[in-house]
Amino acid sequence: MKTILHLHQTHHTLADFESIFKTLAQISGIDGLHLFPELYLTGYPLQDLVLQRPFIDSYLAFFEELNLWAKKQKAGNWRALLGGLHYELEESGLPVKIRNVIYEVIPGEGLKILYTKRLLPNYDIFDEEKYFAAGAQNTFYEFNREIFGLLICEDMWTSSVHDLDPCHLMHLEMKEKNIKVSGIINLSASPFDVAKKHKRFERARNLSLLFNSPFIYLNRVGGEDEVLFDGGSFVMAGPKLHLELKYFEADSKSIDLSLVKSEYEEAPAFKPGNTWEGLFSPQLDSAQTPAVLKSWSDDECAEVLKALQFGFQEYARKNGFKKFLVALSGGMDSAMVLAIIHLCLKKDQDLEAIYMPSIHSSPLSTQLSEKMCASLGIPLAYFPIKFLHSAVKNAFVSQFKEPFEGLTDENVQSRLRGTLLYTRSNQTGAMVINTSNKSELAVGYSTQYGDSVGALSLLGDLYKSEVYRLARFIQEKYNSPIPAGIIERGPSAELRENQLDQDSLPPYERLDAILEGILSYRLGKKQIIGLGFREEEVTKVLNLYLKTEYKRAQFCPILKVKSKSFGFGYRMPISKNLSYQFNS
Amino acid sequence: MKTILHLHQTHHTLADFESIFKTLAQISGIDGLHLFPELYLTGYPLQDLVLQRPFIDSYLAFFEELNLWAKKQKAGNWRALLGGLHYELEESGLPVKIRNVIYEVIPGEGLKILYTKRLLPNYDIFDEEKYFAAGAQNTFYEFNREIFGLLICEDMWTSSVHDLDPCHLMHLEMKEKNIKVSGIINLSASPFDVAKKHKRFERARNLSLLFNSPFIYLNRVGGEDEVLFDGGSFVMAGPKLHLELKYFEADSKSIDLSLVKSEYEEAPAFKPGNTWEGLFSPQLDSAQTPAVLKSWSDDECAEVLKALQFGFQEYARKNGFKKFLVALSGGMDSAMVLAIIHLCLKKDQDLEAIYMPSIHSSPLSTQLSEKMCASLGIPLAYFPIKFLHSAVKNAFVSQFKEPFEGLTDENVQSRLRGTLLYTRSNQTGAMVINTSNKSELAVGYSTQYGDSVGALSLLGDLYKSEVYRLARFIQEKYNSPIPAGIIERGPSAELRENQLDQDSLPPYERLDAILEGILSYRLGKKQIIGLGFREEEVTKVLNLYLKTEYKRAQFCPILKVKSKSFGFGYRMPISKNLSYQFNS
Repeated sequence: MKTILHLHQTHHTLADFESIFKTLAQISGIDGLHLFPELYLTGYPLQDLVLQRPFIDSYLAFFEELNLWAKKQKAGNWRALLGGLHYELEESGLPVKIRNVIYEVIPGEGLKILYTKRLLPNYDIFDEEKYFAAGAQNTFYEFNREIFGLLICEDMWTSSVHDLDPCHLMHLEMKEKNIKVSGIINLSASPFDVAKKHKRFERARNLSLLFNSPFIYLNRVGGEDEVLFDGGSFVMAGPKLHLELKYFEADSKSIDLSLVKSEYEEAPAFKPGNTWEGLFSPQLDSAQTPAVLKSWSDDECAEVLKALQFGFQEYARKNGFKKFLVALSGGMDSAMVLAIIHLCLKKDQDLEAIYMPSIHSSPLSTQLSEKMCASLGIPLAYFPIKFLHSAVKNAFVSQFKEPFEGLTDENVQSRLRGTLLYTRSNQTGAMVINTSNKSELAVGYSTQYGDSVGALSLLGDLYKSEVYRLARFIQEKYNSPIPAGIIERGPSAELRENQLDQDSLPPYERLDAILEGILSYRLGKKQIIGLGFREEEVTKVLNLYLKTEYKRAQFCPILKVKSKSFGFGYRMPISKNLSYQFNS
Repeated sequence: MKTILHLHQTHHTLADFESIFKTLAQISGIDGLHLFPELYLTGYPLQDLVLQRPFIDSYLAFFEELNLWAKKQKAGNWRALLGGLHYELEESGLPVKIRNVIYEVIPGEGLKILYTKRLLPNYDIFDEEKYFAAGAQNTFYEFNREIFGLLICEDMWTSSVHDLDPCHLMHLEMKEKNIKVSGIINLSASPFDVAKKHKRFERARNLSLLFNSPFIYLNRVGGEDEVLFDGGSFVMAGPKLHLELKYFEADSKSIDLSLVKSEYEEAPAFKPGNTWEGLFSPQLDSAQTPAVLKSWSDDECAEVLKALQFGFQEYARKNGFKKFLVALSGGMDSAMVLAIIHLCLKKDQDLEAIYMPSIHSSPLSTQLSEKMCASLGIPLAYFPIKFLHSAVKNAFVSQFKEPFEGLTDENVQSRLRGTLLYTRSNQTGAMVINTSNKSELAVGYSTQYGDSVGALSLLGDLYKSEVYRLARFIQEKYNSPIPAGIIERGPSAELRENQLDQDSLPPYERLDAILEGILSYRLGKKQIIGLGFREEEVTKVLNLYLKTEYKRAQFCPILKVKSKSFGFGYRMPISKNLSYQFNS
């Protein structure tokens, strides 16, 4: 009797119980084992939502409905395994324990708990120990006389930050009890980062060889504010990838288990997994002096572009936006944001650009902005701020008898632009897209409530040199949507005469490598100097980074494409003694 | 031989190792047992700082220095117990395990680990399981032939959200091994909230009776961005409070243990502790219909005022601000912020107010703002925005051929004010203090980048009715710093003709009770209606609350004075299906 595995890589909004139900109902009567992702029944990550009484009540009502539906199904040779929550409640209805579990859907019977997630990730953006109670047992599940080992997401990993290695424990039990499995099934909700696909495949390959069975990996699709779930579900059998589902799209594929079941080579020694370092996949090539940030391949560029466009569309759809507004400066970042959105714009969506020159904006910035919008057919509003800028200046002189200059004069231009941008957004109902990059964010090189505004940041996880790398990729692949002049000119905020970023910062390739050392490797001054950088540039960057925590604390959500990003997973006190950074 | 306990309730900036060392060194040679708070050696909460290489290196160097200092001390009848970190490192120097421990300082010998915290709080603002590994053993410590049970902070609590009850386990071991203790020592870093003092005393009283020994509670002092540590260390012996240290101030007191050691009454049955509900100390009086928010007593008002002033001064000092800027509107919230700061201003600090009327600002707002500043001697800058406002309006008409009105027109006034406020802040180096309250934040009744700006929010954890309550307290106690007219007029944003908050929101006493139901009890629509509210007002408030998550996501740090606050401990996805709130 054949065993068909159906991989359902689903895509639903958090708590959209109606759609979740409809998708599930479609499998009714289709022979085989249907697999759905981790927390399929709710979506992930839920954060405090999981503790809300109305959420709990709605979920339990939905679960009961589902249970009735399953009971009413005709008995047949099909089952579903899906991720959901299990609540243990007090009499008052408040949750005592919440578990992240796998349910089995049994036609004619209902839903039954099979397995509770053992390894709860609790680093970086993950807070599962805050909400969930861990399981303590392996589960071997039998369907169609085949036995499967069950895992949920993090369970497939091991790390020096965890005390537990669920795969190792499962393997031990198999040896002890002489259990032979036909597959290891992992239901996941695993966030995208550009270095992760390779890690997943490698780990799955190791595990497939270890268990001497196919490794079936099912991941969800979704953009949850900052966190992107890329799908890419697969079946790995021994060293060979047998099935791969789409990335950033709902997808369903089926596979006959007998085609991937076979004896593989001898299982290798069990490999230790991640360290703290491995968790954050740092991207420095320290064989060079000074160390350099590794450059993305074309494939990686394509992945990042897809991730950004997906995350943007997800936020827009879930929050009801169909119009978008980008402030162009004539520089690289805003042009890139415009191009990225333009390239994924849907028929019923509108994109508008606005250009707000000050007295320090060069004629070239105007020309380049106009050129880009004209060639892409994007309406460009021209809104000079010279008049408002001088009105504010004059008013300050007459009120305070002190003219302002320097940084004050730079910031006021940026904040007037923020005000005008949001006024236009209010007028049209457009979502404002932020244009800051990760290098700027790290050194605080933007004006709070000025150019740092926006509902969502597309480039906030890309260093400036990565913005350039992605730009080259987009230019080649999409017929150069960005005028060459924008890419070739030096970066400048144009907030004072002849300003260039390089006047106050190290060149971006050095800056970005230093920042990667600080952020992903969590290094200090001496260690970064050890990578081949000059003391004065390291000190300068560290000072800028340390003194601008308050700006990052109020920044908008950032689409996460790296393992270590600013945003929710970056948790730093603003107030602290800073000497520790320089003493060691 | 007398046993003197020295309670050192310390106050240091995070990672200020030099000051921490100096404070400790002062105990050298003073007979008795010296107690210092949880994580005395580093400060708390450290968040990701604990993973930074330079932090780890600096801490370990400091620890080694301390160890040498202890070794060099003459042997004597004194010891210190203090909180610190213990790092277990990989060969590479990266942390494998980090423990939150109690060290014993032994003169002539060095530092020795005694105890590892067992119960790691991981709810709301707490993320200890993210960083720390839990201990698994009770510790009984002997000094001067007296035995003490050791606890760290959360260890004294129990709850349905924890699997573990360290006090119960300690008590069991005492029974089994017939151990008689002379005291239970709890070193804490326990954040302030207005309902907590009473809870601490009650729990300490129960534990003192249970263990039949004094309960010695030592807490740190500090304002760490949002989180305030209030000190208030004490010794509870049986039902009696024997010693109480200052609140929100460093303090040291000593006590002769023999004076508090005695047999108490029969130990009561062991009481169960917190539930999820208890953790968030909700403040609704549901005996009334509709339910009402409990009103603060004068003592509670005094505590909250002290907390806000302390938190404000802490942020200012740690981030180097000596000038402060508040935008007055002629309304209650900004007047309160001004009064609170004015009442705690130090000699070397400056406070400036700025008043920025638009065409919708009433003459009364001007008069009241002037009156308040004149009577308190605070310089008031008058900066009308009428001209800039109409300049923006005209420019939009000529550029976009569409005049704006309604919400757009309201927001532009607010954002122009934000721009001008920060321009003034740039000019003088003043810290801008936010003036939003919790009711506004909850319903999104403020303009992003407009009146929502600021480095720190003083009132963001106070509902509007609590702002009024605190105002009455301040007026009585401090000779009415706020003109009566400000308190008596109805709340209005004055962004359009004759606007009053009550036109679009339920009266504040009803609104605040509904919000407390949503936020602290995590209730949904039906349950709130069950508390005596009308369906339409509940639906309106829920809709406003649910659709403004994006505004709260970019808000400034909020001084936390309640157990459930917006800010770091409030973790809600922006993008989600909202029907769950209304279905149940």
